[in-house]
Amino acid sequence: MSSHPTGETGAVPAEFGFIGRIFRPLAGEGALDLRDDAAVMTPPPGREMVMAVDAMVEGVHFLSDDPADTVGRKLLRCNLSDLAAMDATPLGYLLTVARPRHLAEAWFAAFAGGLRVDQDAYGLGLLGGDTTSTPGPVVLSLTIVGHVAPGCALRRTTARAGDGLWVTGTIGDGALGLLALRGQVPDPDHALAARYRLPCPRLGLGLHGIASAAMDVSDGLVQDAGHLARESGLGVVIEVDQVPLSDAARAAGPQWRETCLTGGDDYELLLAVPPDHEQALLARGRHHGVRMTRIGRFVDPTAGTGVKLYDAQGNVVKVARTGWSHL
Amino acid sequence: MSSHPTGETGAVPAEFGFIGRIFRPLAGEGALDLRDDAAVMTPPPGREMVMAVDAMVEGVHFLSDDPADTVGRKLLRCNLSDLAAMDATPLGYLLTVARPRHLAEAWFAAFAGGLRVDQDAYGLGLLGGDTTSTPGPVVLSLTIVGHVAPGCALRRTTARAGDGLWVTGTIGDGALGLLALRGQVPDPDHALAARYRLPCPRLGLGLHGIASAAMDVSDGLVQDAGHLARESGLGVVIEVDQVPLSDAARAAGPQWRETCLTGGDDYELLLAVPPDHEQALLARGRHHGVRMTRIGRFVDPTAGTGVKLYDAQGNVVKVARTGWSHL
Repeated sequence: MSSHPTGETGAVPAEFGFIGRIFRPLAGEGALDLRDDAAVMTPPPGREMVMAVDAMVEGVHFLSDDPADTVGRKLLRCNLSDLAAMDATPLGYLLTVARPRHLAEAWFAAFAGGLRVDQDAYGLGLLGGDTTSTPGPVVLSLTIVGHVAPGCALRRTTARAGDGLWVTGTIGDGALGLLALRGQVPDPDHALAARYRLPCPRLGLGLHGIASAAMDVSDGLVQDAGHLARESGLGVVIEVDQVPLSDAARAAGPQWRETCLTGGDDYELLLAVPPDHEQALLARGRHHGVRMTRIGRFVDPTAGTGVKLYDAQGNVVKVARTGWSHL
Repeated sequence: MSSHPTGETGAVPAEFGFIGRIFRPLAGEGALDLRDDAAVMTPPPGREMVMAVDAMVEGVHFLSDDPADTVGRKLLRCNLSDLAAMDATPLGYLLTVARPRHLAEAWFAAFAGGLRVDQDAYGLGLLGGDTTSTPGPVVLSLTIVGHVAPGCALRRTTARAGDGLWVTGTIGDGALGLLALRGQVPDPDHALAARYRLPCPRLGLGLHGIASAAMDVSDGLVQDAGHLARESGLGVVIEVDQVPLSDAARAAGPQWRETCLTGGDDYELLLAVPPDHEQALLARGRHHGVRMTRIGRFVDPTAGTGVKLYDAQGNVVKVARTGWSHL
């Protein structure tokens, strides 16, 4: 229920038209054309369901002048990254939109256009949603639904001492991209800004049986690696000079290295991989065109759980902070 | 990612403690203790999954001084009502919380306490969630997950001309309860306020095979009945004097009758029931202690789809508005 009566007799409320124009074209199988109380979905036979949810707030998770289509795509991709970390296959999503009065329908049309592009690219559809007004900033919440073979979801708690710490792709581009958009970091060909706005979820790598644990890097490599280690009851050592950087991140200069390590918004995968699975991992990477880099190792927790950083000379590296908090 | 760095080296971010203290005790089966990227859930064998999502915004869907425990319970119950309308069984839920800095942790502890009471009562658990900061009001979003026998979910599009229009329980208490809390309607024993704060989702009535269509009444009886008719390509006639009112709503006085019909926040079920299923419906109501009232009938759309209201003398009743819009 909302505090805004329609003021019309017998008319269809404004939200119905809004939903029909903006979101119905995104409806996937099981969405019942967004006309019903809930979506109905038959999971693929014999598969487990995987579900995650992420919210994005205007001014916190995206900039007010970010293009609306990339806001939609990033919201979907961040959630897809959660599925990728579990080695799951996407199926559909539900969406809530809290809409401030100042934001024109055109913004949401572009937002939905971005969702359209990426739901087609990643093979999923909108299952349901809720639209409401708010006196505050835009708040978007997306629930992603996927599936995985029973018992095959990758977890955060199952890394073992001796496993290598591996990472997909390159680290730091998202954090530098945000700074580039603020004019603080040079970004001549807009590669960093593009990575900030459009992360690349690492879906479909088929890591079950290769990695012993996984999570995605969203809040900063150092913090998330420490998290993976703690959840597995281990320590983890990172050789910071091994952390893969893009050409654009290197070009920004060595003074931004710590930002790359702790800035977050990477949406790459952090993997715990036993030494005898390394060749299989590298083969997966080659097959999918995804760079795989070993950046450290998991160790017994005798010296404490959590993360330690070393440079190429074996000296301890200290960082002012390890990542971002959402509160 | 958030705009609020922790400022701590090597520490666990503030949100982890918040989630651990407030939400981990709510974690149900498959939630992986809220420690992983996503929840993993095995649907009951041979069942379809049903999913819906609803958002609530402080100052729009609840009052800032509403008790936090009832805000949590109402958020869950509104979503359970969507499952009830599909004749589905609850399984679990995911939650997003956008938290303004002004709101103390105690508010969320009470909010989670309310969720605890109702998730136990209704037999479901928290599967996952996301917590973020916001410069605006509290925004809460809940995705509900349930299951139903294949092909047995009740729909909005399948009412037939000649079906009776039935409603569970009583109508108008929620809308009058909001006015009572604002001091505009007398509510000596707080029965109306209680109904506003704690709707009663009509789960488990077993309406498949009895009702030909269903939806829940959230935005006003008149509007929602019109919606059910339009989605089925029909008209619907409501005899307003048949609409069941509680003693508290009657005591408020006849000047509030239209508010009852259009105010919303009822979370009762609207049902299309063929005449030869009426005895079965009434038997269900007796078995579950739920009042079932026929308030009208679905008609051929020759006079237009949508809703018409009549009084006991057969005179047309006009209302200034039919319900609420969320935009």
